[in-house]
Amino acid sequence: MAEKVVKVGLLGFGTVGTGVVRIVQGHQDDLVKQTGLGIEVHKILVKDKEKSRSINGLDNKITSDPYDIINDPDVDVIVEVIGGIHPTKEYILDALEQGKHIVTANKDLMALHGAEILAKAEEKGCDVFYEASVAGGIPILRALVEGFSSDRITKMMGIVNGTTNYIMTKMSQEGADYADVLKEAQALGYAEADPTSDVEGFDAARKMAILTTLGFRVPLKLDEVDVKGISSVSKEDIAYGKKLGYVIKLLGLARRDEDEVEVSVQPTMVHKDHPLASVNGVFNAVYVHGEAVGETMFYGPGAGELPTATAVVSDLVTIVKNMKLGVNGRGMVAPYKEKKLKDDSKKLSKYFLRLIVADKRGVLAQITQLLANKNISLDQVLQQPYNGGQQAEIIMVTHVAAKSDMNDVLLFLKDMDFITEIKSCYRVEGGE
Amino acid sequence: MAEKVVKVGLLGFGTVGTGVVRIVQGHQDDLVKQTGLGIEVHKILVKDKEKSRSINGLDNKITSDPYDIINDPDVDVIVEVIGGIHPTKEYILDALEQGKHIVTANKDLMALHGAEILAKAEEKGCDVFYEASVAGGIPILRALVEGFSSDRITKMMGIVNGTTNYIMTKMSQEGADYADVLKEAQALGYAEADPTSDVEGFDAARKMAILTTLGFRVPLKLDEVDVKGISSVSKEDIAYGKKLGYVIKLLGLARRDEDEVEVSVQPTMVHKDHPLASVNGVFNAVYVHGEAVGETMFYGPGAGELPTATAVVSDLVTIVKNMKLGVNGRGMVAPYKEKKLKDDSKKLSKYFLRLIVADKRGVLAQITQLLANKNISLDQVLQQPYNGGQQAEIIMVTHVAAKSDMNDVLLFLKDMDFITEIKSCYRVEGGE
Repeated sequence: MAEKVVKVGLLGFGTVGTGVVRIVQGHQDDLVKQTGLGIEVHKILVKDKEKSRSINGLDNKITSDPYDIINDPDVDVIVEVIGGIHPTKEYILDALEQGKHIVTANKDLMALHGAEILAKAEEKGCDVFYEASVAGGIPILRALVEGFSSDRITKMMGIVNGTTNYIMTKMSQEGADYADVLKEAQALGYAEADPTSDVEGFDAARKMAILTTLGFRVPLKLDEVDVKGISSVSKEDIAYGKKLGYVIKLLGLARRDEDEVEVSVQPTMVHKDHPLASVNGVFNAVYVHGEAVGETMFYGPGAGELPTATAVVSDLVTIVKNMKLGVNGRGMVAPYKEKKLKDDSKKLSKYFLRLIVADKRGVLAQITQLLANKNISLDQVLQQPYNGGQQAEIIMVTHVAAKSDMNDVLLFLKDMDFITEIKSCYRVEGGE
Repeated sequence: MAEKVVKVGLLGFGTVGTGVVRIVQGHQDDLVKQTGLGIEVHKILVKDKEKSRSINGLDNKITSDPYDIINDPDVDVIVEVIGGIHPTKEYILDALEQGKHIVTANKDLMALHGAEILAKAEEKGCDVFYEASVAGGIPILRALVEGFSSDRITKMMGIVNGTTNYIMTKMSQEGADYADVLKEAQALGYAEADPTSDVEGFDAARKMAILTTLGFRVPLKLDEVDVKGISSVSKEDIAYGKKLGYVIKLLGLARRDEDEVEVSVQPTMVHKDHPLASVNGVFNAVYVHGEAVGETMFYGPGAGELPTATAVVSDLVTIVKNMKLGVNGRGMVAPYKEKKLKDDSKKLSKYFLRLIVADKRGVLAQITQLLANKNISLDQVLQQPYNGGQQAEIIMVTHVAAKSDMNDVLLFLKDMDFITEIKSCYRVEGGE
């Protein structure tokens, strides 16, 4: 029997909230065995008290007034699964003011206001955990904070948005068009009616901001993440990528060289032998490179009611263990490292370039000369007739180049009369 | 500045021990930032005090008497990287008796005597951590204990031995023979002069015993792991596997159905779409299936000086944090679940079977009838001439069958006069 029961106030009773209640109720014995304390969902915040629920017997716990929970002295921990920025942020700050510990799955909030929330938590001696905010069921934040605590992480790459990975996988496997696959994903519930946040990369950018702050221990603002979405990726890009040994993924990249950092989200050609290349469908994965450990990768479901609820309850277990030991609010390390953002001359990668050009002698030579002027050499070139032979299509993969140089080349190319169209330009990862 | 310096006694100064010293010295600022305390390697146990070392300035720390360290009241934590069972076990028990915390990378010791060591640690209020004992640089033990604390893990599968995975990968990629690849692996230092422990699956079995105890929270003895090595895997098996969509891996399997458990290590046909199928070379990976979280996988280096040292120092950081908080020895959960071992009638899987048979009418019908008598049906069959058409070779993948039934079938087949040879029989994983 547990000596005490920890009381949880649950903000939000959608699918994740329901999952949290199910796990806390269904695994009570295990939770007591692990923590020495019982865990009880004490009050639940809902929008509509009259709505019917898939779990019975909770009527007396349900309230539509958040402050009925936040101000309840019996509540020890607040689990926030409402989402959104306002008024969620205010609820959390008020709850911390009342000395309550927090578990949240809210990536938007943590990416934008994490520093403020964590500072308030430290002031109040409270825990704030948010494992579920990045890559759902994958315990990646713990790995960064605990598992690699003795290492220096130099690079993280993430497939951290299931919607876009589903779309890219389908386009790749079926040679289908973006618009068609997006419609299908919406019909299946894998994409929202307004898919902007996913397909334009904003969701992934929030997760990369959280990963960067924890992994590099530097402060990072969301608007410091360079973001490009997948809506312009064509099935031709995918087909040519495949021909040259690459798959396109919406990839989050965080890279550190000494105290200079770059963070981006963009469609990237990933070499087929790279472990991220075989992460398909709605699955997520985070690749971590540490100075000492080398290459590691964490793979799993990025979303879903139960995976997310599992991460939330595992955070809750950590808080309850800390309560039992009397050490809440003392496990966090605020970002303590200096950070400069790299300028484009220091952002190095290989590039994939697809051009439509006039089909006349010497064009390829002129292009390679333009690249050579910027010290960019080529790894692979493919040229073939286009538009019934009226033009030619040139696909190139370069060796490592600076982003600033590649941008210059693109500007030059635009002005060349033999260039009909610059179809695409992607970062390339792997395949050395 | 750190308020106090934690003093570490290092048992063993080989490659991992050297890595530990390098990380502790090189990352001192980060370690102080994270723990609030300094960490110093205070004494180092070596066999030969006169041997020259790759790190200078440690002469005054070196001793060849273990009890010079174990009985030193200044030493707070013992890091054991000597390996072996005796006298290492006695050193660790004596150190615990003196109230010292332990980090060890010793899978043999933890697989065989983990229960005794953890019980002594609990009695003495000491921490014992051993992340480096399984899958080197992958923080998998933390994930099992913390990340999935709210879930119920039902299945773990691991590629947890780099030597055998290197051999299987090479055989698969080059169509080479086992004996040739083993020799090459020995020349490259990937396999020992006496490779028995690796190639016969004993090393993997120790790691699976540790994973099973932590993941399922059941007590498990090493001799309860069913073990079969890779020395009988032929290049023909690999080639036929490939034809049918599979790669052969030495796979550790731990499976739980209610309170019944099975744990094995054996060469297994893994479907090419399974995330474990693309884990190649000396890399390790552990696949974890939880009731709530679903499929996850952790990938990284399974060995190596720096990955292993990283795991060791990360454990050390956890101990130092616990010291700062005054909560050592209270984070462990002893196995608390009942366990029965499954009998063979409850061990279910698909099977890959390769037979050489007399080339006459009705043989395949008789074999399928034998299988059908045991309720085993077929998913794929491939038949082709063998030995210049004097016999036939039959390759089959079954649907799910009980191990006891498959064993019966193999016994029957052995006695049939039309069977020339049962070439191989493997478990099959994935590809439903």
